Amino acid sequence: MSEVIIFYDIPSRDVKDVAWSPNTWKTRFSLNYKGLPYRTVWVEYPDIARVCREIGAEPTSTSEDGSPYYTLPAIYDPSTKTAISESGKIARYLDKAYPDTPVLIPSGTCALHAAFQEVFLMTVQRRMQPLMLPPTNNILNPPSEAYFRRTRESKFGKLEDWSPPGPIREKHQEDLRVELTKVAVWMASDGEGKPFFMGDTIHYADITIAGWLVWMKKVLGPESQEWTRLKTWDDGKWGTFMQAFEKYEIVG
Amino acid sequence: MSEVIIFYDIPSRDVKDVAWSPNTWKTRFSLNYKGLPYRTVWVEYPDIARVCREIGAEPTSTSEDGSPYYTLPAIYDPSTKTAISESGKIARYLDKAYPDTPVLIPSGTCALHAAFQEVFLMTVQRRMQPLMLPPTNNILNPPSEAYFRRTRESKFGKLEDWSPPGPIREKHQEDLRVELTKVAVWMASDGEGKPFFMGDTIHYADITIAGWLVWMKKVLGPESQEWTRLKTWDDGKWGTFMQAFEKYEIVG
Repeated sequence: MSEVIIFYDIPSRDVKDVAWSPNTWKTRFSLNYKGLPYRTVWVEYPDIARVCREIGAEPTSTSEDGSPYYTLPAIYDPSTKTAISESGKIARYLDKAYPDTPVLIPSGTCALHAAFQEVFLMTVQRRMQPLMLPPTNNILNPPSEAYFRRTRESKFGKLEDWSPPGPIREKHQEDLRVELTKVAVWMASDGEGKPFFMGDTIHYADITIAGWLVWMKKVLGPESQEWTRLKTWDDGKWGTFMQAFEKYEIVG
Repeated sequence: MSEVIIFYDIPSRDVKDVAWSPNTWKTRFSLNYKGLPYRTVWVEYPDIARVCREIGAEPTSTSEDGSPYYTLPAIYDPSTKTAISESGKIARYLDKAYPDTPVLIPSGTCALHAAFQEVFLMTVQRRMQPLMLPPTNNILNPPSEAYFRRTRESKFGKLEDWSPPGPIREKHQEDLRVELTKVAVWMASDGEGKPFFMGDTIHYADITIAGWLVWMKKVLGPESQEWTRLKTWDDGKWGTFMQAFEKYEIVG
């Protein structure tokens, strides 16, 4: 057991069923899709920097005050004594360290995948945040909840004002729908009608999309009106797409 | 001669040496890289819609008033009696119609390439426009110059105010440098130090970048201070990168 990969994730109040963080879901999906054994270590927000330093995972960016900024996901792989942070870097590491498992980022597509991460951030992710950060705050444990609220509100104002039910929230949903349609158009651009970004098989671009969409499913619930509606967008593309990920929604 | 592909491009006052339009350069580079014979038909801006309708090329978007919007590049291929507009669609057509020529968009990367087009538009292209639209206006023939000025100024104000020499233009250059560095970072993300987006060989993502960068070289001149400076950015990456395209800068 001590030799399996250790995967660091952020808990919710009900960690048994709900892994919620979209960025850590990208790594969880990566591990599950590759079939690699791992165990989850749950880390509250205020402890992320300390834990990353302890295992030797690099900061993923720099704070406005110039100090290193640590984020999850991170993994520690005892078999190679390697700590890695940032889901894209983790995907590249897993492809190299475990070449006999399904490939996430095929040779030659690393730069294209990196560019996709950026455009997905600038479009879909940006539109999901006002919808999803306020309800996410409600499912965090107290230490994370206080940290999450403080850091998010210092930039964008009171969480409860971001997307109150009614026309403002409807507008955010419509904005998200427009951005997701762009992704659907890219995926259809080869005219072959394949379900995934690179064709018939899941790769890291698909995992990025699924990681973010599953956030809504996990936090609002699989029966929620918003999730049910999202699955119908683009002629049901996203419902079918997310169905393919159900078998990888394992919280190991 | 009548059987070669006809390529529709926008002239400058000195068409012999200067094909300038970044979007049409994407198709010109595509044709030159594939080694496909073609002849250029030069179309002034006010004639683009008429010419596209005559050859049967589709509009590439919709104007704000709901009318179809026609743009170049477009090609007409007499051997298949096909007219295509939009450089990405043209690249996909050329790959299918001429499978024995170098591939622009490898199988499975069509959606990733489409996503790259979008992020390149949102980053580098957006930052090049204030730098390059005003000097471009100065090299157009009178009918295109009037059309270009009217359509651009109706949205963004007097062309001469966009990037006057001095601190405003310096700022636009710095903004462009920042965005190009992002592209360099994506290209370096596999850690292999290869010169192009997918490795050692030119593909359509590279042609997209080259098409836009060559705009500066053509309009400001290869000896201009701004072009000379751009080539030094990211440790000289863009100078080396554009050198690889010099043999495809043929105006056929």
